[in-house]
Amino acid sequence: MPGTTTLLVLDAEPPPRLGRLTGRARIVHTDAASLAARLPDADVLLVWDLASHAVREAWPGRGPRPAWVHTASAGVDHLLCPELAASDTLVTNARGIFDQPVAEYVAALVLAMAKDLPRTVRAQEARAWRHRETLRVAGTRACVVGSGPIGRAVATTLRTLGITAAVVGRVPGPGVHGPDELDRLLSRADWVVAAAPLTEATEGMFDARRFGIMQPSARFINVGRGRLVVEEALVEALSKRWIAGAAVDVPEREPLHREDPLWEVPNLLVSPHMSGDTVGRHDALAAQFVRLYDRWEAGEPLPNVVDKKLGYVPGH
Amino acid sequence: MPGTTTLLVLDAEPPPRLGRLTGRARIVHTDAASLAARLPDADVLLVWDLASHAVREAWPGRGPRPAWVHTASAGVDHLLCPELAASDTLVTNARGIFDQPVAEYVAALVLAMAKDLPRTVRAQEARAWRHRETLRVAGTRACVVGSGPIGRAVATTLRTLGITAAVVGRVPGPGVHGPDELDRLLSRADWVVAAAPLTEATEGMFDARRFGIMQPSARFINVGRGRLVVEEALVEALSKRWIAGAAVDVPEREPLHREDPLWEVPNLLVSPHMSGDTVGRHDALAAQFVRLYDRWEAGEPLPNVVDKKLGYVPGH
Repeated sequence: MPGTTTLLVLDAEPPPRLGRLTGRARIVHTDAASLAARLPDADVLLVWDLASHAVREAWPGRGPRPAWVHTASAGVDHLLCPELAASDTLVTNARGIFDQPVAEYVAALVLAMAKDLPRTVRAQEARAWRHRETLRVAGTRACVVGSGPIGRAVATTLRTLGITAAVVGRVPGPGVHGPDELDRLLSRADWVVAAAPLTEATEGMFDARRFGIMQPSARFINVGRGRLVVEEALVEALSKRWIAGAAVDVPEREPLHREDPLWEVPNLLVSPHMSGDTVGRHDALAAQFVRLYDRWEAGEPLPNVVDKKLGYVPGH
Repeated sequence: MPGTTTLLVLDAEPPPRLGRLTGRARIVHTDAASLAARLPDADVLLVWDLASHAVREAWPGRGPRPAWVHTASAGVDHLLCPELAASDTLVTNARGIFDQPVAEYVAALVLAMAKDLPRTVRAQEARAWRHRETLRVAGTRACVVGSGPIGRAVATTLRTLGITAAVVGRVPGPGVHGPDELDRLLSRADWVVAAAPLTEATEGMFDARRFGIMQPSARFINVGRGRLVVEEALVEALSKRWIAGAAVDVPEREPLHREDPLWEVPNLLVSPHMSGDTVGRHDALAAQFVRLYDRWEAGEPLPNVVDKKLGYVPGH
């Protein structure tokens, strides 16, 4: 019934454009601090603030809970808690919005490392003409860990550059290698890309042993989640030159503080969790939510439903 | 006749591996200072030092001249002089060796600018977590000026990233726009790539008028030659934000001195003429010269023959 649904929005700047829902839902905006007090009155929760862990913290409290939670992100690790996982609440994500942007970002990082662009920027700051030889990317090999839409889009984009890209996922299938092939593929890869969701199964999977089996010329890229990586092991691998370089868009601690030693690890490029954040994404994310809302209101099944035990949307 | 040919090599580090010519030619290595004295005894000249203008300076002198000059570069502007152009001497270049490396380098620059990577490197140096929105490259438009193998390889690589890439050349043809379409294409382009040879017709073609018709969001990339561009006009276009950014791999003055103001032009990335210089190119360049030498020795026609009036190898 129009107007009787309460849509709670955990807000961030800029807020979502939900004009199409005017008159169809009572839209209540909240910040992280007020979330716990407002959750019992919400039928639907839109998690628009992706930097906060407020849902995970507020959810276990008292009172009724929304029947549907949508997050404007690919990952759901910032909101899943045991109580939400055990509940009947439907969780959906922004599957599809970030695939191509992240794929382009990974291609940018691969090419930037092959062409030594970070050093070129620093040489320019030092006003130094330092000619170097660079690498061809065509003919090199990538191992993309994560077989969801983002991982597969990354592999497809790398292939257009002539890179042989293997995808590794939890379940082997067409074009997807299973976990038992991971170490073999890692040991042959020039580029290792972490694009997996953060789950119990993936947490800390990039550890000292795995950095140890990579080639000394290998470069590691993390666009998934910081805790996929044992950060001390990555720092050691770079400091001792077990691998040639790395780019981390998702450090374990976000935002990284000024004092964090990660800023100065040799051959490490740190970027502030922006791989998927292209101009126009806010409107695309809001429009996607409205499409899902249309279906929810009509009683139709929703796409992008997260398997709360696995911690991501299953299926290729 | 074996051993009777004198092959003069204008040398640079590392010298070319010409082992396959042992016993077939008398190989004489020279530096720029001794070139003039040695030219009269040479049947063939291999220009291995690409940074020097020694050939252009020594050629007009007295005495016989080599019948064949090969340069281990794509451009020939560093060696062509009126006397060489008017002579019967055959000039060949390294057509084919640099196409894919330069195409990858341009893709790296396009993606780095779209994803704002230079600013990320500088933010990391400042230990500052500065999240920004970035651009998608898919769906944008490029205008590649130069319809030789390098320009066409650049366009092909950009297209694999979903960019609509138009090629402009001196002579229109299949997939190549003529000069009369240049201004229209420039005014619509998100990326303008200069990949043309430096000739009388192309010198200074990127001037204030042409930067003025580009979009304020446009970015300019020069991997051709510095003098394709009126550098003061580029500096003004960047300083006054007529265009959004530029990357110059080939400044007018090489190497750029520490005091050069170009280092600090806003939104300009300067790299030290390395777009084609991938690991392994020395061996590829030497092997290419040996293949041409085989044909020359056998009296067969040579590929990659430069039209000395045009200043490049004509034909698509």
